[in-house]
Amino acid sequence: MGRGYFITVEGTDGSGKTTQIKLIEEYLKSKNKSVVLTREPGGTQISEKIRDILLDSQNSEMGITTEMLLYASARSQLVSEVIRPAIKEGKVVICDRFVDSSYVYQGFGRGIDLKVITDVNRIALDGLVPDITLFFDIDPVDALRRRSNATGLDRIEKEKMDFHKRVYNGYKKLAMLYSDRITCIDSSRSIEEIFGDVKVCLNELMDF
Amino acid sequence: MGRGYFITVEGTDGSGKTTQIKLIEEYLKSKNKSVVLTREPGGTQISEKIRDILLDSQNSEMGITTEMLLYASARSQLVSEVIRPAIKEGKVVICDRFVDSSYVYQGFGRGIDLKVITDVNRIALDGLVPDITLFFDIDPVDALRRRSNATGLDRIEKEKMDFHKRVYNGYKKLAMLYSDRITCIDSSRSIEEIFGDVKVCLNELMDF
Repeated sequence: MGRGYFITVEGTDGSGKTTQIKLIEEYLKSKNKSVVLTREPGGTQISEKIRDILLDSQNSEMGITTEMLLYASARSQLVSEVIRPAIKEGKVVICDRFVDSSYVYQGFGRGIDLKVITDVNRIALDGLVPDITLFFDIDPVDALRRRSNATGLDRIEKEKMDFHKRVYNGYKKLAMLYSDRITCIDSSRSIEEIFGDVKVCLNELMDF
Repeated sequence: MGRGYFITVEGTDGSGKTTQIKLIEEYLKSKNKSVVLTREPGGTQISEKIRDILLDSQNSEMGITTEMLLYASARSQLVSEVIRPAIKEGKVVICDRFVDSSYVYQGFGRGIDLKVITDVNRIALDGLVPDITLFFDIDPVDALRRRSNATGLDRIEKEKMDFHKRVYNGYKKLAMLYSDRITCIDSSRSIEEIFGDVKVCLNELMDF
């Protein structure tokens, strides 16, 4: 049994992360790795219940601090119950979204001070850091255009798009700040081209 | 409309706080105060859903950090949605348990570093501090004896009792540390005698 690894996957909606996660899983299995796929918020019984509260559209009164703390609660449980034990057993854990999503959505997106997010998540993560974070980098306007052939945006869509742009720019800033951990992967290309870059990262990390 | 007040009520189970809260409410209403009663964890739609997760016995896998963060999430929502607006409207908010319960149950009880609890709750409370905290002070062993005429404790009961003793000693320490905010009320006496002391505190706080 080799050492375990922790890989997190980040990107805005429409960045193609789900497709790439499937390809990563297949590739690692072909290399005889034991793979654990998980997602945030969720991944444990308790974290999925927290997810239900976070995603329930009835909970429109939720404050941004409450939201940030709930994401951290779900993350804390996922780390202690699933991620740490799996890494210890020599497995490769792939997590669809992790702490960087809190920085970009709650921080850059909703305006919570990044130091506050750092303080809370230092406690939630208890020292756990991903070995590598793959950021699937595509401008959200391009991603939307690609998906829907949209020619224009109405007011609500524009407001949402402004939010997604802040999130996207947040990812770009994090990728600069933590360039040793976060790898930007140009996701405006074909699935095969994107996965080519992903494979380079995985091979380097795991000495394939 | 006068200024608003925020009163929190603390104590171990069996300390008689529920009875005293009812008497406080009646007394304040007799003084023409508009009173908002609330409780932790809970008090808002979202916080009650968080309460359900916290109290559900199926969630036995919950980590102590997750638990602490969930209490803070519920508290944050209660503060922003109920407590702050009510105080602003000149009401008197009485909250059955508040941040001190996190210090004593998660901190002294379960062993989470008090500094960690302070850091998280500084964020959750966003500067809100109770005007006064009434701690109903009764040794948990005496409280149990009074309730059940118990002569002895089995192993599980003893383990639980050790936990409640740590909680109780935690309250005593907090009451010393924050003696300007927390008032210890000897709750080994009759309901009337206890409420006599409570009234003194309320009269002093609100200039009755």
